[in-house]
Amino acid sequence: MDLRQPQALAARARSRSLAEAVAWIDAAVAPLPQETAGLAELCGRVLAADIAALAAEPPHARAVSDGVAVCADELVGASAYNPLTFRLAPAREALAPGTAVAVNAGDPLPRGADAVVPPDYVHTADARGCEIVEAVAPGHAVEMAGSHIRRGATVFAAGRQLSAADIGILAQLGIASAAVVRRPSIGIVLIGRGLDSGTRDADGPMLQRLIARDGGVAGQRHVARDPAALRAALAGVDLDAVFVVGGTGRGPDDRSAAVLAELGEVAVGEIALDPGSGAALGRIAPRTLVGLLPGRPAACLWAYELVMGRAVRRLGGRDPALPYATRTLTLARKIVSAIGVTEIWPVRLAEAEQVEPVTAAPRDSLLALTGADGFIVVPEASEGLAAGATAQVYVHGSGA
Amino acid sequence: MDLRQPQALAARARSRSLAEAVAWIDAAVAPLPQETAGLAELCGRVLAADIAALAAEPPHARAVSDGVAVCADELVGASAYNPLTFRLAPAREALAPGTAVAVNAGDPLPRGADAVVPPDYVHTADARGCEIVEAVAPGHAVEMAGSHIRRGATVFAAGRQLSAADIGILAQLGIASAAVVRRPSIGIVLIGRGLDSGTRDADGPMLQRLIARDGGVAGQRHVARDPAALRAALAGVDLDAVFVVGGTGRGPDDRSAAVLAELGEVAVGEIALDPGSGAALGRIAPRTLVGLLPGRPAACLWAYELVMGRAVRRLGGRDPALPYATRTLTLARKIVSAIGVTEIWPVRLAEAEQVEPVTAAPRDSLLALTGADGFIVVPEASEGLAAGATAQVYVHGSGA
Repeated sequence: MDLRQPQALAARARSRSLAEAVAWIDAAVAPLPQETAGLAELCGRVLAADIAALAAEPPHARAVSDGVAVCADELVGASAYNPLTFRLAPAREALAPGTAVAVNAGDPLPRGADAVVPPDYVHTADARGCEIVEAVAPGHAVEMAGSHIRRGATVFAAGRQLSAADIGILAQLGIASAAVVRRPSIGIVLIGRGLDSGTRDADGPMLQRLIARDGGVAGQRHVARDPAALRAALAGVDLDAVFVVGGTGRGPDDRSAAVLAELGEVAVGEIALDPGSGAALGRIAPRTLVGLLPGRPAACLWAYELVMGRAVRRLGGRDPALPYATRTLTLARKIVSAIGVTEIWPVRLAEAEQVEPVTAAPRDSLLALTGADGFIVVPEASEGLAAGATAQVYVHGSGA
Repeated sequence: MDLRQPQALAARARSRSLAEAVAWIDAAVAPLPQETAGLAELCGRVLAADIAALAAEPPHARAVSDGVAVCADELVGASAYNPLTFRLAPAREALAPGTAVAVNAGDPLPRGADAVVPPDYVHTADARGCEIVEAVAPGHAVEMAGSHIRRGATVFAAGRQLSAADIGILAQLGIASAAVVRRPSIGIVLIGRGLDSGTRDADGPMLQRLIARDGGVAGQRHVARDPAALRAALAGVDLDAVFVVGGTGRGPDDRSAAVLAELGEVAVGEIALDPGSGAALGRIAPRTLVGLLPGRPAACLWAYELVMGRAVRRLGGRDPALPYATRTLTLARKIVSAIGVTEIWPVRLAEAEQVEPVTAAPRDSLLALTGADGFIVVPEASEGLAAGATAQVYVHGSGA
């Protein structure tokens, strides 16, 4: 054990700001190559290329409402006092003068028809014919072919994350598959977890869900608290990213950064984040991003949310920003924050659009989140926020 | 075919407001019974009962940072000019006077210790001992047993939808399973879809994703556009809800409401929603909620979002509100809306926190959503919104 002050100070000097970590991720992490996915797998995926309409939509002129399809010119003068009588022709027959065709909404318009008369304007319809009591303009209750989108026009641009409605649009346009950014494959290596009966593994299940939320596919393994075990776990790794949880502190057994430096590169050393102190970024050749996360659950959570999650979202082509809705709210009580460290403060909604920091549990415990409605990120240059100041609050329930 | 005006007017008179549909859902649809789910399946689920802590957290006093555990009283007078020397005892040995124990963050505090001295205050630590150069108060860098939560205290209340961090909290507390509201099982019956080669089925894939977003488990089937086929599909159904898509208009083949009235009850007839006209609610004994949705994709989408989705969320015990973040924004152009109908207007963000209605495709086409950033719901009592008025915008990307 070597805990002399000069070393400790030197380690401090190496610590890096969250902004530096974010800048490194944005420069070093690019979206993964594309793959083709079918309609049933597309929801939530990110397009790797523009999607163009294979055909016009609608592909043919069609009725927008139920009613009778007519040639609008033949309705001139129709009124309740002057009902015009039309012969009813079979569906899909070309329209002859003096005839109309009963249609359901969505039916193709018969050749020769250019308008649909809604039921309210149609009297005494029977097998022989119908009376129309109001004139409509050409195009009434009709969609012309290509009026929504032209063939070849861009439907969705590359980079769009597809929603449920988007899947409906693709299906409607007859598009059964699309080129999407490959899902990031992520390994979670939990140091000393599941081996020591006194340690309950909160980090593994939590990271699995967060990575899934961000579009990644994660597997996890436990290794002993020993550099050789970590070395073996990282040797020959062929994943898009590996997150090593634990061994990031300054204690005698905290060797994660040393092992990463030996096998690859520590690009961004200890990130000044609280909770989350000790988080670091690097990589192992040829292509694996490596994140080091502290093992303490709250620190692990915030190191993921503010640092590692951004890398996962960038790998998958998603918006890299924190996936929470934000609200600008007023602080009911002050927050005192250390300069030089980005601090995360769980907050809860108080009366009148105000928030206050959670105090039931310390903010370096996950339990602080049981009573929280969201959180505030206090930048490293800030000494804190005064009562009455406004702050951007990331709102729970909108993301994970 | 019978399209006489008196009947058409009578049908109009029967149409019901969205508020009536929502009120019926809130009165008629209760959360499903509970089931037990394990940790790996809990994320996104809704608690059916309170969860209490099985044990105190932390279960024992423990170190918050790396360093050496000491009895704080022994540090009085320590400074850089007066370093105090302590013998280093093995980990987990009870602390004798004059001894200290090297600890990692998270380690249990040795018996007799009440503070942890961080590395910066520890000099020349080796196998024989260490020098401490600053005094700390009792409790420094230590968490006492039960300081975050007491044994038996409520961790999460019934009704909470569990987040990834919540799963971490449960794992940390040693809770491996929980009682959650059963997922709603939903059938989708698509009338005339997949049979008519001219019809592309956008509704099925879209509804599947929306139901999954709202916590339901959905299966779908296609039936012919024929009352007997729908009757057969609904006979003996044993699901929490069935959504029948198509056959809701006023055309000659639109028989969905008639079949529902025959097999069960139409509780809320044609709901005055645009797009979404023709949506209706009812049920079939003994327990199945039935929703009728128009087949036109945009109408199907909005009938789900504003009506049916609320029922799914209530069945699953979730917050019944639309699962989108909202923002209050200013309209750059006016919206003209019909009185007596709730209208949905896709909008896109314009400059300076303004939104404007999408015009590239009509709002009764799904394609209107390709360029939309969100949507506005104009209540049935409103004639519309003036340019410069503020409106609540449901923002895309935050929900489905």
